[in-house]
Amino acid sequence: MAENEAGPQGRDGDFQGLTAALVDAILDAVESRDTAALSGFLEPLHAADIADLLEQIGPAERRDLLGLWSGEIDGEILSEISDAIREEVIEFLPRHVLTDAVRELDTDDVVDILEDLDEPQQAIILGALESADRVAVEQAMAYPEYSAGRLMQREVVVAPLHWTVGEAIDFLRKAEHLPDQFYHVILVDPRMKPQGYVTLGRMLSSPRATALRDIAEDSFRTIKATDPEADVAYIFNQYHLISCPVVDATDRLVGVITIDDAMNVLDEEHEEDILRLAGVGDESAISDGILETVKQRFPWLFVNLLTANMAALVIAQFEATISVIVALAALMPIVASMGGNAGTQSLTVAVRALATKDLTSANAPRVVRREAAVGLINGAAFAVIMGLIGWLGYGSAGLGLVLASALVINLLVAALGGILVPLLLNKLRFDPALASGTFVTTLTDVIGFFAFLGLATLVLL
Amino acid sequence: MAENEAGPQGRDGDFQGLTAALVDAILDAVESRDTAALSGFLEPLHAADIADLLEQIGPAERRDLLGLWSGEIDGEILSEISDAIREEVIEFLPRHVLTDAVRELDTDDVVDILEDLDEPQQAIILGALESADRVAVEQAMAYPEYSAGRLMQREVVVAPLHWTVGEAIDFLRKAEHLPDQFYHVILVDPRMKPQGYVTLGRMLSSPRATALRDIAEDSFRTIKATDPEADVAYIFNQYHLISCPVVDATDRLVGVITIDDAMNVLDEEHEEDILRLAGVGDESAISDGILETVKQRFPWLFVNLLTANMAALVIAQFEATISVIVALAALMPIVASMGGNAGTQSLTVAVRALATKDLTSANAPRVVRREAAVGLINGAAFAVIMGLIGWLGYGSAGLGLVLASALVINLLVAALGGILVPLLLNKLRFDPALASGTFVTTLTDVIGFFAFLGLATLVLL
Repeated sequence: MAENEAGPQGRDGDFQGLTAALVDAILDAVESRDTAALSGFLEPLHAADIADLLEQIGPAERRDLLGLWSGEIDGEILSEISDAIREEVIEFLPRHVLTDAVRELDTDDVVDILEDLDEPQQAIILGALESADRVAVEQAMAYPEYSAGRLMQREVVVAPLHWTVGEAIDFLRKAEHLPDQFYHVILVDPRMKPQGYVTLGRMLSSPRATALRDIAEDSFRTIKATDPEADVAYIFNQYHLISCPVVDATDRLVGVITIDDAMNVLDEEHEEDILRLAGVGDESAISDGILETVKQRFPWLFVNLLTANMAALVIAQFEATISVIVALAALMPIVASMGGNAGTQSLTVAVRALATKDLTSANAPRVVRREAAVGLINGAAFAVIMGLIGWLGYGSAGLGLVLASALVINLLVAALGGILVPLLLNKLRFDPALASGTFVTTLTDVIGFFAFLGLATLVLL
Repeated sequence: MAENEAGPQGRDGDFQGLTAALVDAILDAVESRDTAALSGFLEPLHAADIADLLEQIGPAERRDLLGLWSGEIDGEILSEISDAIREEVIEFLPRHVLTDAVRELDTDDVVDILEDLDEPQQAIILGALESADRVAVEQAMAYPEYSAGRLMQREVVVAPLHWTVGEAIDFLRKAEHLPDQFYHVILVDPRMKPQGYVTLGRMLSSPRATALRDIAEDSFRTIKATDPEADVAYIFNQYHLISCPVVDATDRLVGVITIDDAMNVLDEEHEEDILRLAGVGDESAISDGILETVKQRFPWLFVNLLTANMAALVIAQFEATISVIVALAALMPIVASMGGNAGTQSLTVAVRALATKDLTSANAPRVVRREAAVGLINGAAFAVIMGLIGWLGYGSAGLGLVLASALVINLLVAALGGILVPLLLNKLRFDPALASGTFVTTLTDVIGFFAFLGLATLVLL
């Protein structure tokens, strides 16, 4: 494992932090209860990689590994590990290890861990904190879930608006305790209202006599502690911020959010969108157990069962027609399936554009018109193809005509449903990613079967 | 529009940078050709918001707006704008405006713009650059597309490994030109190989005599210029980096990547995944035109047409059975639809976990077993429900039994397909997001219809 014992030069572009070979070697060491080898493998790893390791191995292996190595679990590993496994790990850890681990964390990381634990475990963690930290954590927990207040660090580096670069540098050099990571000095007025910020690079490269306000950044803006974290991620991404001061209702500085936290939120928001679009519980992880996974997936499958039965009822109305022309039974799923696919295309683009605020009331009418045009054009193209197949393949021009017409109708419905359903859900303040898929495919199934079988009944019987 | 003319305090938690009301007011100003009002609205806006504005309005409005205001288009706006609109904007701009705009950009932003332009436009932009910048851009373009080399800034702030804090600060203060944004000083050996880095915060708070190497960060690692940008995004997200030195094949420093670029890549990777899963061209944007959108969506709909016809062929084999029991025609889409949904659930979780490297060869066998168990349990649950509906609703115990069996089979196939197909595609080095959906739903359609109609033929005839 020489790659994991590299010198100060780091691992030189080898970012396979946790290779399959390394996982195997670690599991071998666990099985042979070789504590020395185990520590040798784990110690050079980043906390995030150790967390991944704990998530990737099975529950029995995890217990054995923790049994051999639990003394070394630190706060950072606890903070990196996924919610599903974290409870299990916390339960397993000796109390003094847990206390040490939690105490070394920044308060925002403690808040992040606490949020997903149940009451008794929360109490254990809060009890482990020193009283100043406990107060800070409890104050953060008083902000709404998924708000900027929960996300921010409470440690900030500020300077009065009237200071010079020299004064600020002298102050920093004398400061007893500075945050681990900070990139700006926030300029505040006497009532602690942020008025701007200065990057450390700018400060370092300016003469000592320069007034801080003269080198403040243009990009300055603040976030309210009650703002939803999704908006925080958007703002960082949109305006390329590195850090951003957080203010309370009276505009006083209460904390700061840095881009690494925002990147994390962005990642989680995407995960939510993609999982919700697929009808999977938005907290599902590859490390979840069987029953948990069943519970996450059952509800949307059940909804789908209801809508599928609705489509079946539509078909049942036309059993007389089908019994005369059985070929209809084979062809009707084509119309429904094409509609379902076209609808999913439109709605995914719409849901994504709503999330990135690229779809707004300013361009919605134009996008709806575009979708309708796209639906008609693609509908016409596939109508020609399937019309010919129906005509030549089944020897019936009438059947070809019915197929073609049903396809145009259903692809238009799919396109309009794909854009209007998410727009409507968004207007009603539901997450469009959550329910659009079911609505749209129900629509395309029902309309697809109805249009095809209805036209067939009219034209072919 | 007082909210956009706020003082040094910024916009105080109002992050509706580009409100619908503002867009309307701007369009009014464009229509009445009121240049003063237009500038009044646009000037306080961030470049990213102006870019969004240009994307959200229609082509005619865009031309009119640019006609009135093109002199003010700066490099940052050009760099924020989406690819689809950028070509159009560049074509419209007077040559001297374009030259000025491009010259004020960092070389990494110029590279980002160049990548998506066609040859003649590339030549215009390259011609606008000063020769030193042109060389830098051409060198960056020599790296593979979507590599770290394309992403990095070439301006770096370095210090010899043996320097003290005081020496570094004096050097920075005397430096004639420093990058706009930098967060670390990179420590290099005499051959320009990076050996570590020091955060500016740490430097500012340490005594002048401190050796830089004593306050270097633990988190230090390097990226190879040829590494794919997806790996860059992963590393920043996994290890919470703020910036990372980039080295060439001989480990010499050639540039630096900062987290805001990595966040951008992460965002684009997500966009690609979500769009590919839905069978939409991965570069589609809400601002694309009708024909472009048709072209993006047609290919996957065409593939779906082929697979739907395959399913229709399966059904056609059982026309004799359906003509005897027409109710089968109404019920068979339920089996296919449940399979399609369950398959989409499994495969979305798998595709996402592959992207985040949470699904690896270490845990793949366990995840496959879990999926199979989940498929069987959910299959059994829905088999009971639909079995009862078939029995009681259609008065045939045999039909209920056939429905139930087909559902168990298809939900198991869906679960296995949903995990095995993306694993296989990933192994073959295809993007699992790109093609998994089609494979899996074809599988569940074909197996669903075959199992249901086949069992019905055996049991009910």
